[in-house]
Amino acid sequence: MKTPKNKHIDLTAAQKLIKNRKRPIDPQMLSAEILAGNTIALSRAITLIESTTSAHQKTAQEILAACLPHTKKAFRVGITGVPGVGKSTFIEALGMLAIEQGKKVAVLAVDPSSTISQGSILGDKTRMERLTADANAFIRPSPAGDALGGVARKTREAISLCEAAGFDLIFIETVGVGQSEIAVHQMTDFFLLLKLAGAGDELQGIKRGIIEMADAIVINKADGINTIAAKHAKTEFSRALHLYRPKASAWQPKIMLCSALKETGIDEIWQTLLEFEAHTKANGFFESNRQDQNKYWLQATVVNALKDRFYKDETVKQQLPKLLDAINTGKVSAFQAAQELLKNFK
Amino acid sequence: MKTPKNKHIDLTAAQKLIKNRKRPIDPQMLSAEILAGNTIALSRAITLIESTTSAHQKTAQEILAACLPHTKKAFRVGITGVPGVGKSTFIEALGMLAIEQGKKVAVLAVDPSSTISQGSILGDKTRMERLTADANAFIRPSPAGDALGGVARKTREAISLCEAAGFDLIFIETVGVGQSEIAVHQMTDFFLLLKLAGAGDELQGIKRGIIEMADAIVINKADGINTIAAKHAKTEFSRALHLYRPKASAWQPKIMLCSALKETGIDEIWQTLLEFEAHTKANGFFESNRQDQNKYWLQATVVNALKDRFYKDETVKQQLPKLLDAINTGKVSAFQAAQELLKNFK
Repeated sequence: MKTPKNKHIDLTAAQKLIKNRKRPIDPQMLSAEILAGNTIALSRAITLIESTTSAHQKTAQEILAACLPHTKKAFRVGITGVPGVGKSTFIEALGMLAIEQGKKVAVLAVDPSSTISQGSILGDKTRMERLTADANAFIRPSPAGDALGGVARKTREAISLCEAAGFDLIFIETVGVGQSEIAVHQMTDFFLLLKLAGAGDELQGIKRGIIEMADAIVINKADGINTIAAKHAKTEFSRALHLYRPKASAWQPKIMLCSALKETGIDEIWQTLLEFEAHTKANGFFESNRQDQNKYWLQATVVNALKDRFYKDETVKQQLPKLLDAINTGKVSAFQAAQELLKNFK
Repeated sequence: MKTPKNKHIDLTAAQKLIKNRKRPIDPQMLSAEILAGNTIALSRAITLIESTTSAHQKTAQEILAACLPHTKKAFRVGITGVPGVGKSTFIEALGMLAIEQGKKVAVLAVDPSSTISQGSILGDKTRMERLTADANAFIRPSPAGDALGGVARKTREAISLCEAAGFDLIFIETVGVGQSEIAVHQMTDFFLLLKLAGAGDELQGIKRGIIEMADAIVINKADGINTIAAKHAKTEFSRALHLYRPKASAWQPKIMLCSALKETGIDEIWQTLLEFEAHTKANGFFESNRQDQNKYWLQATVVNALKDRFYKDETVKQQLPKLLDAINTGKVSAFQAAQELLKNFK
């Protein structure tokens, strides 16, 4: 056994650590620990899910298979907002309130850019000091990965494990890079857009498609001198939402004000979440939406794999640039080019 | 040769018709006629494109191949609006103005539901009497077909043929069934949403995602007692658009009022189209967007074909319902189910 050379390290502790690290993982035992609510086991299992080693992946899938049948469905809340909007403070305030109401709260994140930017959201747990210290909370930063598909799969599986461990309220946070809001929307029951109050121009930052996904738009930092601007923003958003058709959930999206820092408006948001859950469970949308989401991820995984096989095909790789050029110079139509590619694929 | 039995029919004319019908189509000759601007030849070629007979399809592709290299790029304008909003009257007013300005105008439609509803849009050419009678206009109803993919392909090819025939302004109309607006948006340079003025509640009918696609929202029937409501609607839409990020085209979408029937506001809309065309041609968006669209249709065609092969596979067909059930009852994850399906596919 190799021992650390640095003499400042406690040799006994280090050897114990190394021994534990080498001990093979027993998926059945780890699953049992997760189902018993052990968050250290939960953490280890999520690490396996996030691992790129195929042995770890195999173990992770075994754990997942053992946990899935015993998984109780949590209420999953997606939260998006640009950096600086106060997501961590907001989640801490809302999460602590939920814990007071008897909930067990997990916080996960989808941030496909975290490996590039080196600034993983939730990476700094000190931003959620109270939640981090609470036995009824579990916080996990975004898994590393540059492809959204991979990050989404890992997060979906982490959700299942959190549910297996008894967490009944799960927040999934995203800063909205690329298509990550769509991914989070497709894995949550409730989608919340966090915004800042501010001058008219600051409102012009909403990504296309986000307003329509939102079940609630919460304007944060609505305190002190910001209060008037926040109320104005609320009116603007109410008008904008008013233009859209009713949602499939038959839920009328809410616009709310809060100050996560001063903890004002948080209770109203919590009530709204409960109201939405009751509303969609009563009208059947909660369950049908979950089934649609399952179908969505099944189909998305299939399509991604098929596209992957196709675009990695040598003939396709060789022909594609030439054909794109031929389309753009008007030599063939996009459909003819596609047929040409498909003809030579298997 | 069979001759008609009905004695009221002119025998000579009937025989000539039958003879012509049986005459094989020469793709080279038809292409030359199209390129010379012959709308009868154009019409025949589009009929071939729409045909499901494989011999016709083959000829159609030959004609297309012969025409594509000589195709001048028209300005393509997508127009969407619910039935009753006055699309035909609007297109007639705008089209006649464009013809006065020296343009040649083609009107096509994407309506995947037309075979089901039996009520093809543009089917009744009498709604556009003046355009129908004008030598510089060409009107063609939506091709039949229940799958949007097929209708989209046919329409894209019809657009190319119209461009080959010298039409330099092409309207593509849709009532917005299913995903048809997205298809039309992906085959046009400018996307126009036609709305009706009315009480606040009437505004609540906009499909999600449409506002963000619009380069202009035109409120029609803004005349007489509707004027006040129309102005109010204009303010509401301006506020809503204000919430979004600037578009990739760097074009600020316009909200305009018009009365297609009284022909007020039409000139302003025409000026807006010209302004947009100049703006996007100057900043390079016009060309880059066309290239993105070509890529989009190539990829969409590939994905559709791959999905088609996959979901028509016997093993997949057999496994899919069982696996969906297994996901919904929590036995496997969506990703595991997808892997299972993919494993057994080729």
